Amino acid sequence: MNQVAIKTIERADAAVIEGLAECGVATVHEAQGRTGAMEPEIGAVVPGAAVAGSAVTVLCAPGDNWMLHVAIELMQPGDVLVVGTTSRSLDGFFGDILAEFVSQRGGAGVVLDTGVRDVKDLRTQGFPVWSRAVSPQGTVKETVGAVNVPIQCGGRLVIPGDVVVADDDGVVMVTRKQAAEVLEASRQRIDKEEAMRQAIRQGGNTLDLLGLRDKVIEKGLKYEDGPVDWSPRGA
Amino acid sequence: MNQVAIKTIERADAAVIEGLAECGVATVHEAQGRTGAMEPEIGAVVPGAAVAGSAVTVLCAPGDNWMLHVAIELMQPGDVLVVGTTSRSLDGFFGDILAEFVSQRGGAGVVLDTGVRDVKDLRTQGFPVWSRAVSPQGTVKETVGAVNVPIQCGGRLVIPGDVVVADDDGVVMVTRKQAAEVLEASRQRIDKEEAMRQAIRQGGNTLDLLGLRDKVIEKGLKYEDGPVDWSPRGA
Amino acid sequence: MNQVAIKTIERADAAVIEGLAECGVATVHEAQGRTGAMEPEIGAVVPGAAVAGSAVTVLCAPGDNWMLHVAIELMQPGDVLVVGTTSRSLDGFFGDILAEFVSQRGGAGVVLDTGVRDVKDLRTQGFPVWSRAVSPQGTVKETVGAVNVPIQCGGRLVIPGDVVVADDDGVVMVTRKQAAEVLEASRQRIDKEEAMRQAIRQGGNTLDLLGLRDKVIEKGLKYEDGPVDWSPRGA
Amino acid sequence: MNQVAIKTIERADAAVIEGLAECGVATVHEAQGRTGAMEPEIGAVVPGAAVAGSAVTVLCAPGDNWMLHVAIELMQPGDVLVVGTTSRSLDGFFGDILAEFVSQRGGAGVVLDTGVRDVKDLRTQGFPVWSRAVSPQGTVKETVGAVNVPIQCGGRLVIPGDVVVADDDGVVMVTRKQAAEVLEASRQRIDKEEAMRQAIRQGGNTLDLLGLRDKVIEKGLKYEDGPVDWSPRGA
Amino acid sequence: MNQVAIKTIERADAAVIEGLAECGVATVHEAQGRTGAMEPEIGAVVPGAAVAGSAVTVLCAPGDNWMLHVAIELMQPGDVLVVGTTSRSLDGFFGDILAEFVSQRGGAGVVLDTGVRDVKDLRTQGFPVWSRAVSPQGTVKETVGAVNVPIQCGGRLVIPGDVVVADDDGVVMVTRKQAAEVLEASRQRIDKEEAMRQAIRQGGNTLDLLGLRDKVIEKGLKYEDGPVDWSPRGA
Amino acid sequence: MNQVAIKTIERADAAVIEGLAECGVATVHEAQGRTGAMEPEIGAVVPGAAVAGSAVTVLCAPGDNWMLHVAIELMQPGDVLVVGTTSRSLDGFFGDILAEFVSQRGGAGVVLDTGVRDVKDLRTQGFPVWSRAVSPQGTVKETVGAVNVPIQCGGRLVIPGDVVVADDDGVVMVTRKQAAEVLEASRQRIDKEEAMRQAIRQGGNTLDLLGLRDKVIEKGLKYEDGPVDWSPRGA
Repeated sequence: MNQVAIKTIERADAAVIEGLAECGVATVHEAQGRTGAMEPEIGAVVPGAAVAGSAVTVLCAPGDNWMLHVAIELMQPGDVLVVGTTSRSLDGFFGDILAEFVSQRGGAGVVLDTGVRDVKDLRTQGFPVWSRAVSPQGTVKETVGAVNVPIQCGGRLVIPGDVVVADDDGVVMVTRKQAAEVLEASRQRIDKEEAMRQAIRQGGNTLDLLGLRDKVIEKGLKYEDGPVDWSPRGA
Repeated sequence: MNQVAIKTIERADAAVIEGLAECGVATVHEAQGRTGAMEPEIGAVVPGAAVAGSAVTVLCAPGDNWMLHVAIELMQPGDVLVVGTTSRSLDGFFGDILAEFVSQRGGAGVVLDTGVRDVKDLRTQGFPVWSRAVSPQGTVKETVGAVNVPIQCGGRLVIPGDVVVADDDGVVMVTRKQAAEVLEASRQRIDKEEAMRQAIRQGGNTLDLLGLRDKVIEKGLKYEDGPVDWSPRGA
Repeated sequence: MNQVAIKTIERADAAVIEGLAECGVATVHEAQGRTGAMEPEIGAVVPGAAVAGSAVTVLCAPGDNWMLHVAIELMQPGDVLVVGTTSRSLDGFFGDILAEFVSQRGGAGVVLDTGVRDVKDLRTQGFPVWSRAVSPQGTVKETVGAVNVPIQCGGRLVIPGDVVVADDDGVVMVTRKQAAEVLEASRQRIDKEEAMRQAIRQGGNTLDLLGLRDKVIEKGLKYEDGPVDWSPRGA
Repeated sequence: MNQVAIKTIERADAAVIEGLAECGVATVHEAQGRTGAMEPEIGAVVPGAAVAGSAVTVLCAPGDNWMLHVAIELMQPGDVLVVGTTSRSLDGFFGDILAEFVSQRGGAGVVLDTGVRDVKDLRTQGFPVWSRAVSPQGTVKETVGAVNVPIQCGGRLVIPGDVVVADDDGVVMVTRKQAAEVLEASRQRIDKEEAMRQAIRQGGNTLDLLGLRDKVIEKGLKYEDGPVDWSPRGA
Repeated sequence: MNQVAIKTIERADAAVIEGLAECGVATVHEAQGRTGAMEPEIGAVVPGAAVAGSAVTVLCAPGDNWMLHVAIELMQPGDVLVVGTTSRSLDGFFGDILAEFVSQRGGAGVVLDTGVRDVKDLRTQGFPVWSRAVSPQGTVKETVGAVNVPIQCGGRLVIPGDVVVADDDGVVMVTRKQAAEVLEASRQRIDKEEAMRQAIRQGGNTLDLLGLRDKVIEKGLKYEDGPVDWSPRGA
Repeated sequence: MNQVAIKTIERADAAVIEGLAECGVATVHEAQGRTGAMEPEIGAVVPGAAVAGSAVTVLCAPGDNWMLHVAIELMQPGDVLVVGTTSRSLDGFFGDILAEFVSQRGGAGVVLDTGVRDVKDLRTQGFPVWSRAVSPQGTVKETVGAVNVPIQCGGRLVIPGDVVVADDDGVVMVTRKQAAEVLEASRQRIDKEEAMRQAIRQGGNTLDLLGLRDKVIEKGLKYEDGPVDWSPRGA
């Protein structure tokens, strides 16, 4: 493991990041062509939180949160800390003291491929954190890792400065260079979805609205009247 | 896979379905002889929701939610959409647009063997949905599946028109033909449980109330006074 | 399996137990030298609950909750029921009727290596319960197990009379004999953590506050200015 | 649970069953339209074994193998025992004594949704068994289940008399009524696959042999010359 | 964590240990009353290996195999190294160099709650090892743990000097003090099982041999003639 | 998803690749600084196989193996096909027909983040394949993916042309640019390991050979004579 802490990262435009936060994870993920979603096991610890920010990345040894201290010091306001490990670890890497430190630095949130603890405090404070688990198990500070290098988190490559978008649906990554373009596509999608929502409320049907009705027949679907009695004969 | 959409299903009596919703999952499951419970991984996405309805079933390819659109159009007021896949898939098959469509059809809720997304909206609307996961990962519309055929969901066979009962404990299936009988048994059970609850509050003991006290001794349990010091000697 | 129910256990001092509950799981776990935490899969079913108590242990066969009835009768006010099984089982071993019985005995809470059900009632009542799953699946009363013998729960050895501490972070075990000492260490830790929290709010840095700044350099960390453009060349 | 043992089942034609065994699991699964495959967790305990037979089904309580004894007595030569449980259980339900009993009855093999043990003996004897796990954990004989009723095994509905086909790829179910038709389709598939194998050996290309070359372009695939240097810039 | 290495342990009688190895895991587990089996995830890495020995225990931090070096030096001929971690870790804690070291000490085998690597060499040498996983992921030597203290491995408490019995079925622990008694019971069980095997080969039936035939009827099983046509009506 | 197939990739030197294959996965992983190991779930389907090659990457939709056909056509002799999916899928993406096609192209092996089937044939032919599962479940050819773009496989980023090294320990990735350097370091490590193996056989101790004896004392380990009787008092 390369034992290095890169002190500065490039960031996407702040207005773009804010826009992505407003669009939400599911919309951004669709707008980017469905490429950056983390695994479903990475979930919101504090329901209702929704953030976006530039990724400050941390690579730790399993059961060792030392590098978080190094990384948080390098956070700028609006950044999101993203934590990976060299091999799987569900221990409680992050808790309320480190949340204080992130808040002092103006950080927007934290995403971990590990566990967290002090979740009652985190929920009381509404501190935005996403993780793979909640665990009381403590960590050591023995092995040097790295800060602001590419890492794996939630089954996804995270490059420092990429935009993290996170809400109740989970976490999605947007590359820094595509952020503006993805925001534009997300906003168009929101308009289209709102139009579809209205159309449905007025009796519309997604098969027609999405042009799927003929296609499903062409592909072989057959409608039958029914009903069919599928119940086991012997019952 | 048989590419068919059966347009109509037979349903249990509406009053029976409503009665089962009131009895709740744990009671119904006991009353039916403990046969229809889905696996514990199928959980309530929107806490507090509790519904029952006739199953409109959908069989999808993994990562492909096309058939949901076909199925929702065939739902009648009070129905519950139940979604299975030909092989395991945790992607976000269902979100707020489809929830609008289900609501427009008067659907009572949705149970999926997959993931869902837009959960903030679903929770705000109180839309009743149960699933195996929350995931932002989008789906395609490429492979034709089937609607209103027997499927597997939550490790359980679901036949169209069977009654789905779902609440914070999970999901249980009741066959259409047994629904009235299971409701009757559920209500008797509720009365008995209420009596037991009262008896306990007045100092009763479940060993006596359930007639287990002698039986446990016959089967070999020995009471010993204690205390025993089990602490490791070396500590 | 030794079919025995030990009627009495030795307990730690009530004031010590109460103190441990106030300190919380994460702090107690650190103060004891990080030894007693249950696995992260053992989670709070009723958010916000926080208890400590003497462990009354139960060993059950998988899918069989008979011994819970025997054990609850032997609980004293303030005790916590801790349930293990001879092999893995996620069924709903515990529900609202047994919660009534625990309450009648003055029990402080329940920790299970299995599933629970009737969670809507448990949440309404604020009944403190921790488990591996929520499941509607019922259990039988066929196999005699044991009460107040050492068991495994959440990947941890639990000796009757050991102190269980549980909150939103999960569950930690403290041996009866170490309870007072761990409480003392926990309180010192709380003071130190509060001091650190204050120091951070005033601009402090955990690297300095914990004396990690020099050590991380000695161990080989190199700071580099950056930024580095890690984005794939081809993108 | 309905406590019943149905003594006789209807079976598919013996020659058809034998034919399906020869075709193998993957081929049969494709030939039937990809509908009956058990989950990948159900694996061959004895490598190289390959059987087909009529399903004699058993429904057990978790951790309780009593009904296996009842069911094996009802097996006819060539039958395959298929074991499900009312809730998940990985205990060692089956071992070398029961293997003797199955052999005495002329049984063709055993498929379990649980664990097995005595695997060294089973491997030495080449006894054909598929299961979810290997586990030394013993079982009790306390709860009455059912024999020759529909069960769930490996995430699949198994109806008594359906044909079980099992080999190193896992297990697939074929309904009794479709068995002859599926055999016919399997044999055609084997011929086609052999032709394709030969064509490939002579330099053929599956894109052409399967007619996929134009279709993949129509659907939007673009070929680019490359190479692209995707390596991170900073490395 | 108590940072201690206890240099000596008490051992069971060597002849008893050898006898337990010959009896095998499944038999010993039954003979001891089904109490000491490790979880099914702890499997044989080298098929066919079968050993018993006194447990030399090691407690490691996750991803850190330092203490194995300390522990192996303290092994006596015939001992089995048993490795637990303070929190879950599947990394490759053990490989061929350490296998050389164990062999040099005359060790009988190794059981790990983690991963192992160099498995091709281990299989070539027939070195007896059981683990939760195979993984190439390396470990560090940073955190001091403990040797010859009680640990958790495979969901089981392991006390130094307890007898480990391991074969293709997995691993079972026998307490040092019960070892002789369990061996005696194991041998009786082997005789009884051999008698049953013979009886079955001569046409015997386990329902009769185990006296279960009447009991299963008393408990409510009803035999019905059948066959029943359980096939779905609609198919 | 970018629907593109890059026809050519850059490769590391063939002699370097061959050298890495000879060094094996565990050694290469250590020599590269422990950075490229895939997750332990990616295992050898055909025991004893050991290969290295340039990664030809494929990105597929879940349950859809269409792109494998496109990718195999682009393989050069010695290449290794590495298959990822946009979301998790354990279906049987690869079998004996595609193995024929890979062999015809001179491919060295295949690594999949999914399942495989026809494993009996693959084992008979000794075809080198690593996967997450064995599964009979078939796949469709409906969704266009990509070939020779960066993918995720086994929790690891795979860039086309990077060197895949795979054996019984699993799979490790080496970047193309570091391949020669990692080979050099691997060979040095092999020499050092052989020397250590010899030293151990002559009575050496890894604590001394690795210079760990003093360091473990400095870090706080205390040796105590023992034995300690840790057995529970009450037993």
